[in-house]
Amino acid sequence: MSTTLGWLASELGGELLGNPEIEIRRVVHPSHAENEHDLALVYSASVAPIVKERAVQTAMVPLSPDVPGIPNQIKVQRPRVSLARLLEIFARPPVVPTGIHPTAFVDPASEIAADVSIGPLCRIGPGAKIGAGTRLVSGVQIGAEVEIGSGCLLFSGVCVGDRVRIGNRVIIKANAAIANDGFSFQTVEPGSAEVVRKTGKVQPTESRILRINSVGTVVIGDDVEVGACTCIDRATLHETRIGNGTKIDNLVQIAHNVQIGENCVIVAMAGIAGSATIGNRVVIAAQAGIPDHTTVGDDSLIMPQAGVTGHLPARSYVGGTPAMPRKQALQDLMQVKRIKGLGKRIKELEARLDQMA
Amino acid sequence: MSTTLGWLASELGGELLGNPEIEIRRVVHPSHAENEHDLALVYSASVAPIVKERAVQTAMVPLSPDVPGIPNQIKVQRPRVSLARLLEIFARPPVVPTGIHPTAFVDPASEIAADVSIGPLCRIGPGAKIGAGTRLVSGVQIGAEVEIGSGCLLFSGVCVGDRVRIGNRVIIKANAAIANDGFSFQTVEPGSAEVVRKTGKVQPTESRILRINSVGTVVIGDDVEVGACTCIDRATLHETRIGNGTKIDNLVQIAHNVQIGENCVIVAMAGIAGSATIGNRVVIAAQAGIPDHTTVGDDSLIMPQAGVTGHLPARSYVGGTPAMPRKQALQDLMQVKRIKGLGKRIKELEARLDQMA
Amino acid sequence: MSTTLGWLASELGGELLGNPEIEIRRVVHPSHAENEHDLALVYSASVAPIVKERAVQTAMVPLSPDVPGIPNQIKVQRPRVSLARLLEIFARPPVVPTGIHPTAFVDPASEIAADVSIGPLCRIGPGAKIGAGTRLVSGVQIGAEVEIGSGCLLFSGVCVGDRVRIGNRVIIKANAAIANDGFSFQTVEPGSAEVVRKTGKVQPTESRILRINSVGTVVIGDDVEVGACTCIDRATLHETRIGNGTKIDNLVQIAHNVQIGENCVIVAMAGIAGSATIGNRVVIAAQAGIPDHTTVGDDSLIMPQAGVTGHLPARSYVGGTPAMPRKQALQDLMQVKRIKGLGKRIKELEARLDQMA
Repeated sequence: MSTTLGWLASELGGELLGNPEIEIRRVVHPSHAENEHDLALVYSASVAPIVKERAVQTAMVPLSPDVPGIPNQIKVQRPRVSLARLLEIFARPPVVPTGIHPTAFVDPASEIAADVSIGPLCRIGPGAKIGAGTRLVSGVQIGAEVEIGSGCLLFSGVCVGDRVRIGNRVIIKANAAIANDGFSFQTVEPGSAEVVRKTGKVQPTESRILRINSVGTVVIGDDVEVGACTCIDRATLHETRIGNGTKIDNLVQIAHNVQIGENCVIVAMAGIAGSATIGNRVVIAAQAGIPDHTTVGDDSLIMPQAGVTGHLPARSYVGGTPAMPRKQALQDLMQVKRIKGLGKRIKELEARLDQMA
Repeated sequence: MSTTLGWLASELGGELLGNPEIEIRRVVHPSHAENEHDLALVYSASVAPIVKERAVQTAMVPLSPDVPGIPNQIKVQRPRVSLARLLEIFARPPVVPTGIHPTAFVDPASEIAADVSIGPLCRIGPGAKIGAGTRLVSGVQIGAEVEIGSGCLLFSGVCVGDRVRIGNRVIIKANAAIANDGFSFQTVEPGSAEVVRKTGKVQPTESRILRINSVGTVVIGDDVEVGACTCIDRATLHETRIGNGTKIDNLVQIAHNVQIGENCVIVAMAGIAGSATIGNRVVIAAQAGIPDHTTVGDDSLIMPQAGVTGHLPARSYVGGTPAMPRKQALQDLMQVKRIKGLGKRIKELEARLDQMA
Repeated sequence: MSTTLGWLASELGGELLGNPEIEIRRVVHPSHAENEHDLALVYSASVAPIVKERAVQTAMVPLSPDVPGIPNQIKVQRPRVSLARLLEIFARPPVVPTGIHPTAFVDPASEIAADVSIGPLCRIGPGAKIGAGTRLVSGVQIGAEVEIGSGCLLFSGVCVGDRVRIGNRVIIKANAAIANDGFSFQTVEPGSAEVVRKTGKVQPTESRILRINSVGTVVIGDDVEVGACTCIDRATLHETRIGNGTKIDNLVQIAHNVQIGENCVIVAMAGIAGSATIGNRVVIAAQAGIPDHTTVGDDSLIMPQAGVTGHLPARSYVGGTPAMPRKQALQDLMQVKRIKGLGKRIKELEARLDQMA
């Protein structure tokens, strides 16, 4: 890899200071800068002591403030936007041998585009179709009749069940489990959860539990990212759906029939229960929970560990369990701190009244 | 697959209206009904507009109320119970080639029943026994001396450690991890968690951490379902046990020595810590936590995200963190909303008293 | 396996009572003791009825109190410390065939030490190095240029991404996913989470989401344990790091750039967000969450389901969401219980004042 500071500055649309001929070999935090070939990321003046200590020679810096003492600089407007481009240039994609590895099993009844990479010990089921440039690292299990678009990247251990449809440029990380049957059961007689909801009382039931099979599938749009060990369950009848551009972190649960819009961000360990509908550009933070059959409106923001309990209109901003508007949740927390003081004031009032009586 | 409306009506014990000769090809939500061969699920009158718009021709409907305008109907008493039977008939089981796939490795010292299906890239360890009709989709890893009953279905990527015993008709979903060693350690000197429990104060300790190996195993009963990426740890000495008929969702943690009764329902992301004992027919909702060495009585219902902190008697119905009876938890939440108002009333009282003084 | 009671007593540094020649075959809970060859673990007098009922012949017991009626005993000072040694002696390690299994794919450009065991259907990428005595059970996926030390044990289905460095005696449990790319994105224009943090209001944005690739890696120290289905993400630029001796349970999320010190204990389902720094000997209990870019000081103890919201100094002991000092969290809970009573007292005061007016 050979890239000069001048070329990078023009790629990033940034302003160049210093020597455009320096070859940049790595992008680093200032504390790891070793020489002029290391492009240090300087986001704020707070790293100035590190810059000095490491004698940083080359850096990408914001338009302001100035961080003094760096001879070679690229000045950019939004450093994290530029970082995205930088790390596209300096990407280190997983090593996947070209073509179909001899230890992979590709069903003869599948259709594999010419330049697909299927790594060691992958399985491609009958009727599957895999689009141009898609890469499967190793040990990936693809079911029957699965359709995967072009330019996708599936890491080791990913399991995709039969009939799933995946768009283009989708990234699925290690050991994600796509299209398992939904967790859907029905008791022959009303079960305890059903009874308690109606009566408020727990009644033992000896009812047999019937399984409701999932005959539907999962559809994943373009440019979606699915995290490691994340589970997306198959729909009961039709499709569990992840909209274009939505990014899902590790260890997320997306249950059967869930509909997720476009460009959502769902952070690690969030759980979305069956048949919930999530709008577009919704952010669900880590460890939050969305109950079944609820709707979360566009552009909503759900804080970490929030426990949503009902429908949320567009642009909701909620936290806490049960989740409520963020402001209200914070106020409640502060109100609790007042109780002790209120108790004292009541005691004083009582004493004053007693004296007056 | 060819099934007529008349035959389905008799299978479901339902009342038939319309043409019994219609061949049913799919079970659909009314919004996806395309022609008379699609059996639409109509649970309530609320879908009447969709029924009209899609000109639904054929439907399964409840005994009441009538949903007008559907010429062919099966009327049933409990639609979701009938759905379970319908989706048994219309099931789409995973595609698994019959017999032992040439890319699978089956240890010669194992016993595989005649009609077992072992898909591509599975491994069966020495001494393992797999019962009649059991299917392993692909990439399934079965350890040494594992015993699996008949009619089981293990999806891709499932890992089952040595010596586990699994009953009949068990379903284990993709990338579940059964029988890893328990998370059990002991510091040579009392560790910080041990000290703080006694003294309430955190004391740094430099003690070495010893590992307590797990020499026990996991025993899973008949008709159990284990979710994707769910972990069930091996017992320290004896058996971690999942009772007959218990259903476990995705991403659930079941620690070493846990004993779970029959017909429980454990929803996604719930965690059950070491040596906890769960009764029969217990429902543990999503993201709830049960601490180590606690007991949860029969028929208890634990709400989502609840943090249980002690033993629960039979028929408990708890929510919140720390978990308390559901009613009390809701009252506490409402009481918090009163604080602001109480503060105002105290202020008024103080003003009145000041005036009187 | 043949071990006498006398030999075990000397191994454990315990006091022997009874017959030193008894051959011990199993370590059991008293309720599973069947004969004198079963060494029952007796921690306290509370199991005396079981000891009597099962006529326990042989036991490991604490120095005090005496549990009467057991003819053969090893008396030890800290029974759980002795248990660790006992279960080292009676360990039942996973069955892994010696050498490289014929169904494994080991890249010719890798370096495998002489006595490494690589089980069925494992993949070792180009440039990988695996140290002496390390065992990979089956279906383990090791990326390119990964370095694994000596004496490690990787269970089935573990995925390790390219360039990861793993120390000695590390245990990684089934289906763990090491070194996936971090969950790191940037909107071209300020995104909704960014705007709401500044303005408190949710503003819809149509901004394109850019991916920030991870070019860094993961470094795992010596004697670390990583749980089943646990995810440790790759650093953006440098290294996500797990210190020597740290133990991580199942289903834990450790995001990109996280730095974890030595001898920490991180319990199941805990989540540590991007760029957080965790000190030494920190205990993070189950289902707790640590936000991004925060610091948790040495020897801190974070209770189950806690939602940390800021930096924590050394020796913090916190619980609740938002997490606060444990004592304060408990007080808040108790204060809430007072509200109803305070309301009544205010009503009485009001009535008294009304009467006086």
